[in-house]
Amino acid sequence: MLERIRIVLIGTSHPGNIGGVARAMHNMGLADLALVAPRCEVITQDSISRASGADHLLHQAKVHATLEDAVADCTLAVGASARSRTLPWPMLSPRELADRLPTECQAADARVALVFGREDSGLTNAELQRCHAHVHIPTNADFSSLNLAAAVQVLAYECRMAWLNQAYGQADATATVPSDDLATHAELERYFEHLERTLIGIDFHDPDQPRQLMARLRRLYLRARPERMEMNILRGILSATEKAANIKPPKP
Amino acid sequence: MLERIRIVLIGTSHPGNIGGVARAMHNMGLADLALVAPRCEVITQDSISRASGADHLLHQAKVHATLEDAVADCTLAVGASARSRTLPWPMLSPRELADRLPTECQAADARVALVFGREDSGLTNAELQRCHAHVHIPTNADFSSLNLAAAVQVLAYECRMAWLNQAYGQADATATVPSDDLATHAELERYFEHLERTLIGIDFHDPDQPRQLMARLRRLYLRARPERMEMNILRGILSATEKAANIKPPKP
Repeated sequence: MLERIRIVLIGTSHPGNIGGVARAMHNMGLADLALVAPRCEVITQDSISRASGADHLLHQAKVHATLEDAVADCTLAVGASARSRTLPWPMLSPRELADRLPTECQAADARVALVFGREDSGLTNAELQRCHAHVHIPTNADFSSLNLAAAVQVLAYECRMAWLNQAYGQADATATVPSDDLATHAELERYFEHLERTLIGIDFHDPDQPRQLMARLRRLYLRARPERMEMNILRGILSATEKAANIKPPKP
Repeated sequence: MLERIRIVLIGTSHPGNIGGVARAMHNMGLADLALVAPRCEVITQDSISRASGADHLLHQAKVHATLEDAVADCTLAVGASARSRTLPWPMLSPRELADRLPTECQAADARVALVFGREDSGLTNAELQRCHAHVHIPTNADFSSLNLAAAVQVLAYECRMAWLNQAYGQADATATVPSDDLATHAELERYFEHLERTLIGIDFHDPDQPRQLMARLRRLYLRARPERMEMNILRGILSATEKAANIKPPKP
């Protein structure tokens, strides 16, 4: 289970924090680290020092230009969020997230991404809206900003506890088992692009006056955890709509 | 509940770690920090920087010469331990510890100490044997040494989760409520001193060949969580024994 969990850090500024994250991950048995557009060097004296023996995770880490790339193969993406947003999203506590992991990780090609934002400003709304759910670590209301490595430590610890509970046969039998043929993040994003294009084409959606339309649709579909087959059907509907409305497909 | 929990750090070497601990504590709503014989300055640029706005905890922190002093008023002391020791002690997971906290913290004068050791070598056997129980954070067997602030973060997070569960009325009704008149750590230690003196006096115990005798007795009594009244009785028995065996009391 733990090998199917990826830690994704977006726009990290301090090499020491990346090192601290690597140490926290290795301590808890996680190994898959992805960095999206880091704003600092990854391999430095400071990151290696804070990794304290887990620097192989730094060397193995994959660097991506976009969140899209980093989570393209993931079947569940969960964004760490310090506060509730204008458009409320399905929100989990770290423990509720952990309770879902054993079933989420059952399929051989299941991949779970836990996505963490910048030290100073967290995740953007656009990034949070690419996640199926958000996870909020409960904190003191007067002092809610966790150190990045500390936030990863708490979630990685909950992952390990869930894995140990599973290993000892205490998995929650009431949890809903997701389909073993879930659409990947990349397939979902291709669908959302297609959907937006179609909605513009049919004059339902004005990107200059978005009114959170796409955000609301994302929330709906992501909550539904579509299977690949369902995606194909939905995309087929869009193509049929475009054809019927005489909308030209985009230039390749 | 959270105000009755004290974080005790023994022999810390790096100011940055003390700062990181202060931040983790304040994030989770803990405020009582005690430092035992720190091996570094407490208020430095590094500790204030890592505290990241929680430096009032550093200024409020009490510095003690001994663990004894730091936990003298505590009704429960739990030592963080990375490995099992030669003489196994009651061992809790962080979650099991958290499950006990609401009941442990019920009495007005209840105080719980969570004791953390040195960055390089943890707690000594003598220090661990002054604790009622040990708590072990589950880690990767190949890479078990957590950063000090990360270890405090995990336990402080579990404390906060327990407090939130209690606030929402989900406290475990099956937990054993401890007496509201528990002996303090200082009272227990006076008893153990008296006990050892008496055992030497009656030629039962040879401090040059201890054979873990006192450790085993400590484990027994600490597990029993004696009340103050029971302590008085036990000490009365020792006094009577000394008197009967014609053992002179120690010089003041």
